[in-house]
Amino acid sequence: MTRQLLIEKIREKKSFLCVGLDSDLQKIPSFLLNFDDPLFEFNKRIIDATADLAVAYKINTAFYEMHGAAGWKTMEKTLEYIPENIFTIADAKRGDIGNSSSYYANAFYDTLNFDSITVAPYMGEDSVKPFIREGKWAIILGLTSNKGSIDFQQLELKTGSKLFESVLSASSTWGNEHNMMYVVGATRGEMIAKVRQILPEHFLLVPGIGAQGGSLQEVCKYGLNRDVGLLVNSSRGIIYAGNDKNFASEAGKAAEQLQKQMKSILDSAYSR
Amino acid sequence: MTRQLLIEKIREKKSFLCVGLDSDLQKIPSFLLNFDDPLFEFNKRIIDATADLAVAYKINTAFYEMHGAAGWKTMEKTLEYIPENIFTIADAKRGDIGNSSSYYANAFYDTLNFDSITVAPYMGEDSVKPFIREGKWAIILGLTSNKGSIDFQQLELKTGSKLFESVLSASSTWGNEHNMMYVVGATRGEMIAKVRQILPEHFLLVPGIGAQGGSLQEVCKYGLNRDVGLLVNSSRGIIYAGNDKNFASEAGKAAEQLQKQMKSILDSAYSR
Repeated sequence: MTRQLLIEKIREKKSFLCVGLDSDLQKIPSFLLNFDDPLFEFNKRIIDATADLAVAYKINTAFYEMHGAAGWKTMEKTLEYIPENIFTIADAKRGDIGNSSSYYANAFYDTLNFDSITVAPYMGEDSVKPFIREGKWAIILGLTSNKGSIDFQQLELKTGSKLFESVLSASSTWGNEHNMMYVVGATRGEMIAKVRQILPEHFLLVPGIGAQGGSLQEVCKYGLNRDVGLLVNSSRGIIYAGNDKNFASEAGKAAEQLQKQMKSILDSAYSR
Repeated sequence: MTRQLLIEKIREKKSFLCVGLDSDLQKIPSFLLNFDDPLFEFNKRIIDATADLAVAYKINTAFYEMHGAAGWKTMEKTLEYIPENIFTIADAKRGDIGNSSSYYANAFYDTLNFDSITVAPYMGEDSVKPFIREGKWAIILGLTSNKGSIDFQQLELKTGSKLFESVLSASSTWGNEHNMMYVVGATRGEMIAKVRQILPEHFLLVPGIGAQGGSLQEVCKYGLNRDVGLLVNSSRGIIYAGNDKNFASEAGKAAEQLQKQMKSILDSAYSR
């Protein structure tokens, strides 16, 4: 999906919501366990209930790989089921030496036809570049929302900047705002401001709204740019909003609540 | 597999060779393409030819994921085929927030029953800890052998040490030498010496012998410790030593050549 089309969809749906399909057999309504592929049935109904409200779906590969080859099959089916013109993210956090990264790019861009993949930057340029491709998106881990982000990402370098700042500025030269995005943890508003100084144009994928404690207002205050420039993810807060036969409509309501907040933020930010 | 058993196997086989199953449809002998699962047929024959010479097999997940669910099935079958008492490594370079990392640990330790998995450290302690489990091994990316390792891993911190040194010393406190190893690129002998100063006891997984240009002598000079403490990987140099009907025996010969060098190094290092 092109940047242009993504921005169009955001303006059209008045939403920059990404729904995270962190689908877990332990947490989905028990009546679904009678189906052949319970996770796919769950995903299908969640997608039906939220496709008009979300501009993106994020599939966290950990939740599928734990089921081995069958889990990969579920990912394939889910991806086929997601309607056209919705941005798809493989939250896979891959990264390896060049030819291995190329094969990961094949796995997620070609075999599974995702629009994008999250990429771990520790191995540097040649590990990231195979994910940079026209019409596809490498979403680099910049600053994550977990506690461990202080261990290395926020270490101070000799140059005075922090490691994540160096990761943002160095890696952004390997592609551009049409084929790269960044993961930026939502629990730190002032950190998003720092990121925007370094990357004024790039889209940021912001996890951590809801379960991880980030505030949508705070994220938008510091993160919006002239093209919106944000995809805000919610997983558990939407997909587990309900826990019985009505789970899909509850998910729809939770998504709608976020979408309405987003609409009001967009209306006031771009009214002039 | 316990550290004790791994060391016993190394002493018994006079080998610390890890064979990397970077198996690629573009590179395996063409007659195998007539089988239902060519990569599994290839792996089976490579394993038969090298199991007496290697103490470990490393499966690079990128090469399998590019084939989607079918590739995961091939990994499952390959793993079942590897004889007992040979150490198995999922070269998967995973790492995510805590509950996602737990699910990756389930995927590779439980569903696939690997002994170990390579882990990307960028997200810090809570992303690594789920991979630390008794009887299993988290193999942390310390210093990798690719060109991009200079981009971030070798950045100088305010404290004067390099990022990879901080990764080694911080992460080593999260587990111990019975459940953690480190990936250390073989192309830099003096770098291995630095790593040994920080981690005298841990096993190091050393890629980069052969295709990536590292020298076995150099690695051993700086890397051996009292328990050997090295697993040296060769992938392409062994598995693609031949390219027709005789590819398995050629792989066996290439593995034997490395094993003989290892035997002579072990004999002279531990003769006293």
